[in-house]
Amino acid sequence: MFEFGIIARQGCARAGYFHTPHGDLLTPVFAPVGTQAVVKTLTPAQLSELGASLVLANTYHLYLRPGDELVAEMGGLHTFMHWLRPLLTDSGGYQVFSLTQTRKVDKDGVTFKSHIDGYTHRLTPEKSIAIQENLGADIIMAFDECADPNDHTYIPKAMERTHRWAERCLAAKRRADQALFGILQGGVNPDLRAASAKFISSLPFPGLAIGGLSVGETKAETYAILDLVNGILPEDKPRYLMGVGTPEDLIEGVRRGVDIFDCVLPTRLARHHAVFSPEGRLNLMNATFARDPRPIDETCTCYTCQTFTRAYLRHLIAAKELLAGTLLSIHNLHALIRLMSEIRAAIIEGTFESRVPEWQTQWRGNAERLN
Amino acid sequence: MFEFGIIARQGCARAGYFHTPHGDLLTPVFAPVGTQAVVKTLTPAQLSELGASLVLANTYHLYLRPGDELVAEMGGLHTFMHWLRPLLTDSGGYQVFSLTQTRKVDKDGVTFKSHIDGYTHRLTPEKSIAIQENLGADIIMAFDECADPNDHTYIPKAMERTHRWAERCLAAKRRADQALFGILQGGVNPDLRAASAKFISSLPFPGLAIGGLSVGETKAETYAILDLVNGILPEDKPRYLMGVGTPEDLIEGVRRGVDIFDCVLPTRLARHHAVFSPEGRLNLMNATFARDPRPIDETCTCYTCQTFTRAYLRHLIAAKELLAGTLLSIHNLHALIRLMSEIRAAIIEGTFESRVPEWQTQWRGNAERLN
Repeated sequence: MFEFGIIARQGCARAGYFHTPHGDLLTPVFAPVGTQAVVKTLTPAQLSELGASLVLANTYHLYLRPGDELVAEMGGLHTFMHWLRPLLTDSGGYQVFSLTQTRKVDKDGVTFKSHIDGYTHRLTPEKSIAIQENLGADIIMAFDECADPNDHTYIPKAMERTHRWAERCLAAKRRADQALFGILQGGVNPDLRAASAKFISSLPFPGLAIGGLSVGETKAETYAILDLVNGILPEDKPRYLMGVGTPEDLIEGVRRGVDIFDCVLPTRLARHHAVFSPEGRLNLMNATFARDPRPIDETCTCYTCQTFTRAYLRHLIAAKELLAGTLLSIHNLHALIRLMSEIRAAIIEGTFESRVPEWQTQWRGNAERLN
Repeated sequence: MFEFGIIARQGCARAGYFHTPHGDLLTPVFAPVGTQAVVKTLTPAQLSELGASLVLANTYHLYLRPGDELVAEMGGLHTFMHWLRPLLTDSGGYQVFSLTQTRKVDKDGVTFKSHIDGYTHRLTPEKSIAIQENLGADIIMAFDECADPNDHTYIPKAMERTHRWAERCLAAKRRADQALFGILQGGVNPDLRAASAKFISSLPFPGLAIGGLSVGETKAETYAILDLVNGILPEDKPRYLMGVGTPEDLIEGVRRGVDIFDCVLPTRLARHHAVFSPEGRLNLMNATFARDPRPIDETCTCYTCQTFTRAYLRHLIAAKELLAGTLLSIHNLHALIRLMSEIRAAIIEGTFESRVPEWQTQWRGNAERLN
């Protein structure tokens, strides 16, 4: 039910497929984030049209609202949000650990207060899996602890806990139509990362995720960790780099063996009026665009670029029209999905490494991460 | 260039067409409102898909932002907003007169302060036509004065001024590819309305609009005025009832000879979580919909009803997801456009009057106007 195959390689880069109950993912793939069972401002029809194949939804948010049992009663997340292609849910861990002021971790799980109403809730490995089984995504994630990358005394403890919880998630899992991915932790410490890669790889997960990156470390640190784990992770399982999504990070991630990415960056930038472009990241609220008759990107094939000028988009932003967010999200998501599609084709054609400088130049001004 | 033809009648109801440079309008027709060169939250692709043919944009708003000269420089309003079917612009009069605290009327025009930045501007009949020529809609409107319907001493003055301004608008108009419609005023006073209908009909306008209704008068008063002017207006010109758009008002308007309607009601309701339905106007934020697996309307063919449950729409609203506004707008606009399409088909088949009770029953709970 979850066959992963590699159809071409160039260096460490891989082009493959991951078969799921809701269709094949063609890897490498970028997944838009639909936190609350919706990729913000977009219909599933628009998401399909811009080329999305895998969508991520957040367990923490959906557990709190509308509740995973309600989603199950409505036929599961695919039916509820009408995304009939592959879905991935995270474990809730990352969001819960972000609530630094209102959560307490113990050996068994995490107690935290809801950001919506302040009520106390508890997540454990078993509870996270139960919620994700109610939601019903194709790919579900082990409950892990993502520690502050600068807290060097705590990182080993968080990693050890992540390893114990990984075993408990595997034991708790019931549904055969979901692939449970394990998550490596270990911060940017090479020894810990190597140990985590070895341990998580030794468990019977059908896919492996690299967690705890793009959380404040430098890009050089990110890439060094990817180089390191790339030599350890098994070749025959898909590799998912969580929460990473600048164009540069996608290119460098694929070069280091990553197959799956997700990030809120394209939709979050869109809500702040910023777009990816070959001229760099542009803020379309800027008055210099008021009479600019060009699309965001002359070479882009998305609905927004095929239909509207920068002047019109700037007008929508200035007039506080919500459609601006929709149109900019379409462009930003399409830009990353198109980049992944070009990369995949190049790996298959054997031209990937020779085209890297061209992509690096094209996306040079778009490297900044979220912080 | 602007041929109007009636292809069937039943009683006073007419089914026809109005040929414009951007295609034929099939009348009776309901026009969504795109105040700032966008029907709020919808792409032109979504508007087309839900069946819109004519879209209204507001001269007052576009004159202030982004400016009619900028729109002209970008190729005109059709190109700017990418609505390639017929467009209609109002004259700016209605919005300017709504600024009761910050405008001054004189014989020649109106001086007012912008709601955006407080700067002083002036609209005259000639200026309104010049702006509308820059915008370039297919149907443009004469600059009129819409008086408070309860100010019985002022209404005759406003009507007289509207008549003088109508003549000046005709004299000012230059473009041959735009149809300038005249507007009747006269409040709910039958003598004044009859005089206005006669006078405006005597001028060489290719279409006639009934202004100053649905502004606080009772429905009985609206319908009495429509009955009255229906006997006076020439049969061979399209009749446009401005700003009216409850399902009941559309049915009763068509029965009284109206061909064109516009209203912000469907999109404004959508932003307040309310939808038209055969069960009456529903507010989908209501917790009773949290686990409701039905679409808004089982009989509706719109994207929203074909795709999503009330439970999902209610979740989007509760989670403050902007897509709710998009999906509810699609439904509400489609409901009125579908009603008009059913009405047109029934007039052609000769079954219109016999179906009126059925539509009245179907839309019974949706009669409330905006106020």
